[in-house]
Amino acid sequence: MTDTTPRNSLTLLGLGDMGTALARTWLAAGHSLTVWNRTPAKAGPLAAEGAVVAPTAAAAVAANGLVVTCLLDDASVRSTLDGIDLTGKDLVDLTTGTPAEARARAAWAEARGARYTDGGIMATPTMIGVPEAGGYVFYSGSRALFDTHRATLEVPAGARFVGEDPGHAALHDVALLSAMYGLFAGISHAYALTEGEDIAPKELAPLLSEWLGAMGFFVGNAAERLTSRDFTTGVVSNLAMQVAATGTLLRTAEEQGVSAELISPYLDLMRRRLTADPAAHGGEDTAGALLLLKKER
Amino acid sequence: MTDTTPRNSLTLLGLGDMGTALARTWLAAGHSLTVWNRTPAKAGPLAAEGAVVAPTAAAAVAANGLVVTCLLDDASVRSTLDGIDLTGKDLVDLTTGTPAEARARAAWAEARGARYTDGGIMATPTMIGVPEAGGYVFYSGSRALFDTHRATLEVPAGARFVGEDPGHAALHDVALLSAMYGLFAGISHAYALTEGEDIAPKELAPLLSEWLGAMGFFVGNAAERLTSRDFTTGVVSNLAMQVAATGTLLRTAEEQGVSAELISPYLDLMRRRLTADPAAHGGEDTAGALLLLKKER
Repeated sequence: MTDTTPRNSLTLLGLGDMGTALARTWLAAGHSLTVWNRTPAKAGPLAAEGAVVAPTAAAAVAANGLVVTCLLDDASVRSTLDGIDLTGKDLVDLTTGTPAEARARAAWAEARGARYTDGGIMATPTMIGVPEAGGYVFYSGSRALFDTHRATLEVPAGARFVGEDPGHAALHDVALLSAMYGLFAGISHAYALTEGEDIAPKELAPLLSEWLGAMGFFVGNAAERLTSRDFTTGVVSNLAMQVAATGTLLRTAEEQGVSAELISPYLDLMRRRLTADPAAHGGEDTAGALLLLKKER
Repeated sequence: MTDTTPRNSLTLLGLGDMGTALARTWLAAGHSLTVWNRTPAKAGPLAAEGAVVAPTAAAAVAANGLVVTCLLDDASVRSTLDGIDLTGKDLVDLTTGTPAEARARAAWAEARGARYTDGGIMATPTMIGVPEAGGYVFYSGSRALFDTHRATLEVPAGARFVGEDPGHAALHDVALLSAMYGLFAGISHAYALTEGEDIAPKELAPLLSEWLGAMGFFVGNAAERLTSRDFTTGVVSNLAMQVAATGTLLRTAEEQGVSAELISPYLDLMRRRLTADPAAHGGEDTAGALLLLKKER
């Protein structure tokens, strides 16, 4: 069985803040949209905007070949779809989850006769349907599904396909969010250091922005080092020098009455990389330290 | 006593990698430079380039009104200058140290009749004398000293005066370096997550760069929130939502066999801010979490 419903027709399960934002963009773009939510009241405003409100999840799934889920978590996806005929359906799961959850959900859906593509949304609900906000969605899993429905999937936000492994959308999503929290942690420590000093946050801000922008070179530098597995070329400031300078950073935090909890783990990681073999690692780029994060399996 | 030596004449104490790089730029710019180093051999190449090599630190200090120190640490500055007449000297200390060390050194120098300006170098030795590399030096302390010698100080790298408090150059230096290590930590975690997956570092790199560039908005956003002390306006993604999503980040790290040590402290800080008063903090920006870093004094 293949999808015989029109291309611009789809079902959406889940009307939280994100689901509702997605729904509005498809309705505004003239798509025929069937919605379902565990709490029916959430569907009211969308019905007024033209959505068909299905009485049950099964009825919603039956209405269209393309079924998008945007639920609380992976367990909700499973419990919502359990027992519903998915034969021939194209399931796009935008529910937040881990790579392993996405892989398991893909296998589960395919065993029920559906094609499956997972999505990781790099946007807040307020950025959905606002192209200039720059939000987008990572997709991975069935490329055939993605290619079939690409135009529909691109209505709420940009769509980026990152491979056939259904876990890779979530992995890209989590990798970028995790990197963001590192950035936020560094910025937070910097502002905490200057709290109570005669240094206005708005004076520090442009200096921080300029500096962090310049230090973003580390993204490409680390990629080069990880690819070549040679951490000794292209070194701007070597590991031995950087470890030697960490004492000043920690003593300054102490002087300023600021907990070093956000920066000390990375300083410690660099120190562990260096002390493991000073002769081998002292002249390296700091990127090699990240290899210590991988646990023995 | 005021400085009667020519404006383009100075003394430099300390010829490590950074001191040597600084010396070369002044010599190349035609300045009359007297140098001294604890290990005399380091001065040889500079003598060949035109530097006057003083036999003792005292002789070096006596040679010029402007004395620049670039030594191992603050204790080295003290032990090197101890007992030397500093009356009327302009001391610029580029030695790496903490804000408290700079303040103490300033008081110490002023008690000996010198003017004092501290410097924090935002560059590696290879960036000195290479304007396009973008390195610069934070200066703080005596503005009169800085204004008198600004042209000389700008020879090796850009010069940015950040206030009369002699500790503020070091504080700016450490704040920016600390923020950088947060950024490096986040990037490191992201690459560690994808290690061993069929995701090349060079494929992830442009996505990471673009995302972190966009998330740099947090610098200005946090400055606004810290200035107004109102963490509930301009919220893109609120604290309650972000804390709810941290489980996915931690479980993904676990699935991928990656230690969460670099990102968990910030996730924990957000959680502590939220749970301290969910009603008050749940709708806030995450920037409020950094207030928890300040220890009770």
